[in-house]
Amino acid sequence: MTAHGAVHTPAFIPVGTKATVKSLTSDEVQASGTGMFFVNTYHLYLEPGDEVVKRLGGLHRFMHWDGPIITDSGGFQVFSLGSKKFGKIHGDDVESLVKVTDDGVEFKSYSDGSAHFFSPEKSLTIQQNLGADIILPLDECTPNHVRKKYAKQSLNRTHEWAKRSLEFFNTRKNKNQALYGIVQGSVFEDLRKNSARLISSLPFSGIAIGGVSVGETKKEVRHVLDWIVPILPENKPRHLLGVGEIDDIFTLVEKGIDTFDCVLPTRMGRMGKLLTKQKWGKRTSYDSGQKLQRHYEIDVLKTEFKEDKLPPDPTCPCFVCRQYSRAYLRHLFKARELLAYRLATFHNLYFIQNLMHDIRRSIEDGSFAQLKKTWIGV
Amino acid sequence: MTAHGAVHTPAFIPVGTKATVKSLTSDEVQASGTGMFFVNTYHLYLEPGDEVVKRLGGLHRFMHWDGPIITDSGGFQVFSLGSKKFGKIHGDDVESLVKVTDDGVEFKSYSDGSAHFFSPEKSLTIQQNLGADIILPLDECTPNHVRKKYAKQSLNRTHEWAKRSLEFFNTRKNKNQALYGIVQGSVFEDLRKNSARLISSLPFSGIAIGGVSVGETKKEVRHVLDWIVPILPENKPRHLLGVGEIDDIFTLVEKGIDTFDCVLPTRMGRMGKLLTKQKWGKRTSYDSGQKLQRHYEIDVLKTEFKEDKLPPDPTCPCFVCRQYSRAYLRHLFKARELLAYRLATFHNLYFIQNLMHDIRRSIEDGSFAQLKKTWIGV
Repeated sequence: MTAHGAVHTPAFIPVGTKATVKSLTSDEVQASGTGMFFVNTYHLYLEPGDEVVKRLGGLHRFMHWDGPIITDSGGFQVFSLGSKKFGKIHGDDVESLVKVTDDGVEFKSYSDGSAHFFSPEKSLTIQQNLGADIILPLDECTPNHVRKKYAKQSLNRTHEWAKRSLEFFNTRKNKNQALYGIVQGSVFEDLRKNSARLISSLPFSGIAIGGVSVGETKKEVRHVLDWIVPILPENKPRHLLGVGEIDDIFTLVEKGIDTFDCVLPTRMGRMGKLLTKQKWGKRTSYDSGQKLQRHYEIDVLKTEFKEDKLPPDPTCPCFVCRQYSRAYLRHLFKARELLAYRLATFHNLYFIQNLMHDIRRSIEDGSFAQLKKTWIGV
Repeated sequence: MTAHGAVHTPAFIPVGTKATVKSLTSDEVQASGTGMFFVNTYHLYLEPGDEVVKRLGGLHRFMHWDGPIITDSGGFQVFSLGSKKFGKIHGDDVESLVKVTDDGVEFKSYSDGSAHFFSPEKSLTIQQNLGADIILPLDECTPNHVRKKYAKQSLNRTHEWAKRSLEFFNTRKNKNQALYGIVQGSVFEDLRKNSARLISSLPFSGIAIGGVSVGETKKEVRHVLDWIVPILPENKPRHLLGVGEIDDIFTLVEKGIDTFDCVLPTRMGRMGKLLTKQKWGKRTSYDSGQKLQRHYEIDVLKTEFKEDKLPPDPTCPCFVCRQYSRAYLRHLFKARELLAYRLATFHNLYFIQNLMHDIRRSIEDGSFAQLKKTWIGV
């Protein structure tokens, strides 16, 4: 329950980086079955600026979205975009243009290279200006190839920042906002467990799990969840940051995650990959190189769809599938027509939200295992 | 009245070049108040191909549009895109990669340079495959700087093609399609009148007026209409090709034009120019360099709109104006978010169609002159 209504869980949370789920109106985001979406603090801090958004009445009004919103701390983009564009990946022995100290993190804008500094307090101030329902404390996102020594040092810092964030949040509390804590610890079992215990012991409103989307394999995601979920409090919502392919979704739900955000369904849509229940053979998973048993997308740009009168997914009741053929979508993508991106995005988002609806129902009536088997075969 | 319903006139006909009014769904095109839209034969002939569209059930089904559609002959793009990309503008003494003979026109694709040939019969065959309600015969679009000698020769050819088109159309008649004739004649009074007389004498279902958007001034458009409209039959619909700024609209309606197509409101939208009833001072007209008395657009990218909470047009009831601020639109345009283009396109199209609605009502109740004065001051 948030200041802008309840969220039915488990829930898929799409990402609207710059205060828009790319190509969709807020009405369409709602019509897709989306209850809450994710907005990136880093991008809005840079443009148009969190204070501008505040003066315009806050994020909800700015985007015309009356439902719950979650913002991140900005940390993930500081580390990933900063290091990609202006320096090497950060770590214990790598020089980087992202400079982390115990105070906070100094970085350069991904767009114009200008210098900025985020402290835990600064990140929360920005998020208070933006006005999301759920906000997150600044953390350091360590890539999975760091040495354990650095991972430990980084985790300690993240924990210190978590405490500072809580303290700052409590002095400037806004009853419409909830602060989640973030569990980090990279791929190391003891660090993850240590982090889960500490974060669980602090008076956060919910628990987010970070750092599992950074180049880890699907197997490692399962390991992390197996280590930490038993430690997490039963009465607090659990959000997993940045994971959400179809096979992941079943894993996360099974392991007890309530909400999770991911850019994949919408990003894939903009590339012409349309989700469909039909099985199209094996493929390589995006983030891990692992082979999946089946997959659920077609690349509509392929010649085989040039005269395909079928909708993206013949079983899908979304407006795109009711009105348009794969052949038309292929034509739009080939012609780089703007309509292509929005039709594909809407369909993919609707498709995932429809799956989430089926998953919630299956949990209620005890048929989750059966549903999972239909979808991913195990 | 067409096979897909009636069109309330005078009507603004937006352009959906590649079987999509850029960025909008067919439902939104309808919701904007649009009754009929224009699709370009040239582009669809090249991609995905008219025969593909035919096999997919025709344009209406392909685009999910149940209302009337008009297609052009492809000639305008053959001449304008062909000459822009692969050679100089054609004319009596200029070598060109667009080769016109009495048989038809040889040209190269704007996208891949491949060679193609359109005859009057070929253009109609393509348009029959596409299946629009109103189709147009191949004509030669002469730019306004040609010598009279060439203009006359070109007009004779266009007239011969008009007769051949009628003959071909009658042998392969499709009761769901209507063929309009096209009046050409460049900027020359005697040629224009001659053309109006000849085209009026032939059994076309309607009359289109071509060649007035090719670099002519607004004054010249008025001259052409003054010359030819008195000659046109009273009982046939009149379409003007390629003109439709707000001041033009009042001129065309006053001069007795029923329908007209134009890319400007939608193209301007994609550039961040939002139509609004507020007056924003003088500006230079797009196509002529003439100064207009007032204009009706804001460039939402300007800094002055960064914190502007007003909708694009405070008097407009469209969903964009009900939901979003100029500040949000500016943010989306600055961030090059896909949502920007569609919101601006929808608003501009709705704005123009709302104006057309007011114009039709003012004609019914005799207040057109008053409405015109409110809008353009004369």
